[in-house]
Amino acid sequence: MFPNNINNLIENFKKLPGIGQKSAERLAFSVLKNFDSDDYDDFSNSLISVRDDTKYCSICNVISETDVCNICSDNSRNHELLIVVENSKDVFSIEKLGNFNGYYHVLDGLISPFDDITPDDINLESLFDRVKNDKIKELIFVTRSGVEADTTILYIKKMLEDFDIVISRVANGIPIGADMDYIDTLTLESALNNRKQVLD
Amino acid sequence: MFPNNINNLIENFKKLPGIGQKSAERLAFSVLKNFDSDDYDDFSNSLISVRDDTKYCSICNVISETDVCNICSDNSRNHELLIVVENSKDVFSIEKLGNFNGYYHVLDGLISPFDDITPDDINLESLFDRVKNDKIKELIFVTRSGVEADTTILYIKKMLEDFDIVISRVANGIPIGADMDYIDTLTLESALNNRKQVLD
Repeated sequence: MFPNNINNLIENFKKLPGIGQKSAERLAFSVLKNFDSDDYDDFSNSLISVRDDTKYCSICNVISETDVCNICSDNSRNHELLIVVENSKDVFSIEKLGNFNGYYHVLDGLISPFDDITPDDINLESLFDRVKNDKIKELIFVTRSGVEADTTILYIKKMLEDFDIVISRVANGIPIGADMDYIDTLTLESALNNRKQVLD
Repeated sequence: MFPNNINNLIENFKKLPGIGQKSAERLAFSVLKNFDSDDYDDFSNSLISVRDDTKYCSICNVISETDVCNICSDNSRNHELLIVVENSKDVFSIEKLGNFNGYYHVLDGLISPFDDITPDDINLESLFDRVKNDKIKELIFVTRSGVEADTTILYIKKMLEDFDIVISRVANGIPIGADMDYIDTLTLESALNNRKQVLD
């Protein structure tokens, strides 16, 4: 319906999560209306740069500008603690807290038989190597809940049963500030089971 | 916080309407996760093509792949009716209805003293030329409501007062299917004023 080049841009916006036909049209026409010539170059180049210049830390697998990321190359952190996450983005979310002083490991996925994601498809070998070779005392899983996370953690636990290592997992519970009306039953049940005594 | 190339992509997504920091991060990481190599090229090229290949119809000013758009080059339509719209996109929305058989004129904006948009900044000269040279009998304004639309229509009406031409405007009213709870008072007032007698 629209000219071809506009249609193409719309189709590209539709590849993004949560963007359907109507939103994509709105975005494409806003680009046409508001972008100056440099904006087009910037956007276009930034896409190509994400493809071509993104590196992954050779130790923890987080996205990085260098072969070994800032965190892994910082020797002053606590070598006994390793947080395991699904995605690179999670590392940055936790780092923003500013109070975790250990290291990270990015799996780039969770085991999911339904989606045909097997242990070989995610970044597990290097995790096992790190447990074998480093002095890690605790693996802390910081992932979304669900069958995939359960399966992944169980699998890792089994593979590491010969090692003297604590495997822990973030608490599920009611988000701070959340309205009780919007808490699902699984979360509420978990929050109840993990209740804490109120001390003086 | 993120690597530079990811940050750049995030900043570019933030130039789009309705996309803030959090959404832009989500989009950038979804690109990194889900795009294959060709997807990056497609998206990047489609942006550049929108900048470099977009033409505007030399008659009605709608975006077009040709110097004169499909509609203006179709001589079988009704030359007496001209719909005036703010943006190219509106032409496609009306064409989708499939029952308007006249021609269009795209203003590319509305007069807005607050935003320093004067009559010279929008595509009015060519509208007046068309009225002078063609056999247009009715100008139908299909625009959003508001001071800018009122000002623009009033200005055009004044400039064309010597011509024997009807100037009309789409009806405001309650959108079909809309919940009464969400109708603003101005719309409700307009819908009441424009009420129609229910005939047998």
